Amino acid sequence: MKKLKRSLRLVEMTQTLLQHPHSLISLTSFAERYQSAKSSISEDLAMIRDMFEESGLGDLQTYAGAAGGVKYIPKVPRSASLSFIKSICGQLEKQERILPGGFLYMSDLLGQPALLNELGKIFATAFANLEVDVVMTVETKGIPLAYATATYLNLPVVIVRRDNKVTEGSAVSINYVSGSSKRIQTMSLSRRALKEQSRVLIVDDYMRVGGTVRGMMDLLQEFRATVRGVGVFMESAEVADHLVDDYISLARVSGIETGRASVGLGNYFDKIG
Amino acid sequence: MKKLKRSLRLVEMTQTLLQHPHSLISLTSFAERYQSAKSSISEDLAMIRDMFEESGLGDLQTYAGAAGGVKYIPKVPRSASLSFIKSICGQLEKQERILPGGFLYMSDLLGQPALLNELGKIFATAFANLEVDVVMTVETKGIPLAYATATYLNLPVVIVRRDNKVTEGSAVSINYVSGSSKRIQTMSLSRRALKEQSRVLIVDDYMRVGGTVRGMMDLLQEFRATVRGVGVFMESAEVADHLVDDYISLARVSGIETGRASVGLGNYFDKIG
Repeated sequence: MKKLKRSLRLVEMTQTLLQHPHSLISLTSFAERYQSAKSSISEDLAMIRDMFEESGLGDLQTYAGAAGGVKYIPKVPRSASLSFIKSICGQLEKQERILPGGFLYMSDLLGQPALLNELGKIFATAFANLEVDVVMTVETKGIPLAYATATYLNLPVVIVRRDNKVTEGSAVSINYVSGSSKRIQTMSLSRRALKEQSRVLIVDDYMRVGGTVRGMMDLLQEFRATVRGVGVFMESAEVADHLVDDYISLARVSGIETGRASVGLGNYFDKIG
Repeated sequence: MKKLKRSLRLVEMTQTLLQHPHSLISLTSFAERYQSAKSSISEDLAMIRDMFEESGLGDLQTYAGAAGGVKYIPKVPRSASLSFIKSICGQLEKQERILPGGFLYMSDLLGQPALLNELGKIFATAFANLEVDVVMTVETKGIPLAYATATYLNLPVVIVRRDNKVTEGSAVSINYVSGSSKRIQTMSLSRRALKEQSRVLIVDDYMRVGGTVRGMMDLLQEFRATVRGVGVFMESAEVADHLVDDYISLARVSGIETGRASVGLGNYFDKIG
């Protein structure tokens, strides 16, 4: 690559970092790419770090030594995530969203990639320090949220199926009791999809009693895998006893049954103080 | 916002543009944000445009006049998409991927967000000039690809369900004949999910005969919506008569039945010459 003016080099380094979150990029590779001294690259990175911090994009972490380099850790500041989730809560409280059977219609919001990406970045902030190998969810509505989170954490996604699909090869199935309907349901995961002893982050769009998340945890035992974290976008506030103890929720809904839903902040905002 | 040095302004403008593809950003908003003359902002954008072009990120289109501004159009150059898809084809040809029943195991690859994002960007390149309101797919495996495509096109996503979910409210269901298994199947879409007369881009992971895509087209008639484009990641080369005429595929597989899959380029690469 031909030698670039500093400003252009900064533009290109910025986009490289943004597109490779949680990935270690060596200073040497930057220095070679731009035919510049490592000291100049370090100065550039310091400028980019300041800019990222000021714009609320996240941290640039530098690692010294031969295997060293720089890593972009996407982080949403508390104030930004707070105002973002509050605006979503406002949109979700509209009465026409309440469906027969006590459900809240959210598919229009969860159909907006920009919104999903922001939610994914908030989960990536919450779980930035967790050592995890894979993000897992169950079809259908948790899938985009899981991918958005995994994008910012630079992790693969594994999808648990409600049925046993022939296109997935041999699979492990379990039965579990849905917490809400008390009906027995099945979920299955392809043997190929998950390495034994993987460390898993579970992400889903909605949790009432937690039967589905509990089911995923049981399923993971068959793979001798461990759950390191659970993140749900929305939880129901009507449930006193969850089947899952340790989880993060971004929003919390109550009053659906009465026809007047009230949507507030989830426990994530208690945890980050 | 305090006045920034030019290089920092470039870094911030770069990330703003990258994060808002296919969105018109007015020069005035940049000028006000950075307390700079529009002429300086125009110079900055010219530099960023050159960089985006050189790095194969896409175009910056500028629109003159009072309602004018700048729009980032993500585009993957032909050479980059060609070598990317070729490398995926190589990975997909491994014999252990062939599953009983004549399926190719692809879930590991489609579980990698970075790969999905690249595929989405290629579809966004192919359909950059299409006037579309929404990206549509059917659960389950097409979902991440649809979101990746929609992210780069700045469009919402609508998901067709295989069953009729109570959490989606009243829905329109149709029966269709699966092209491969010749069985009657059902798909449904919530009334709330799609405005009448929407212009739709259909995205899916795999197409054999095209029965599922054909089913989505029939379903869309119930919404008086029109299909403007169809993109599938992989098509089967074993089928002479597709139920869908006009579509783009990125890869094409043959020989699964014989136990030796051969995976080559899809028709997209014929179309772009």
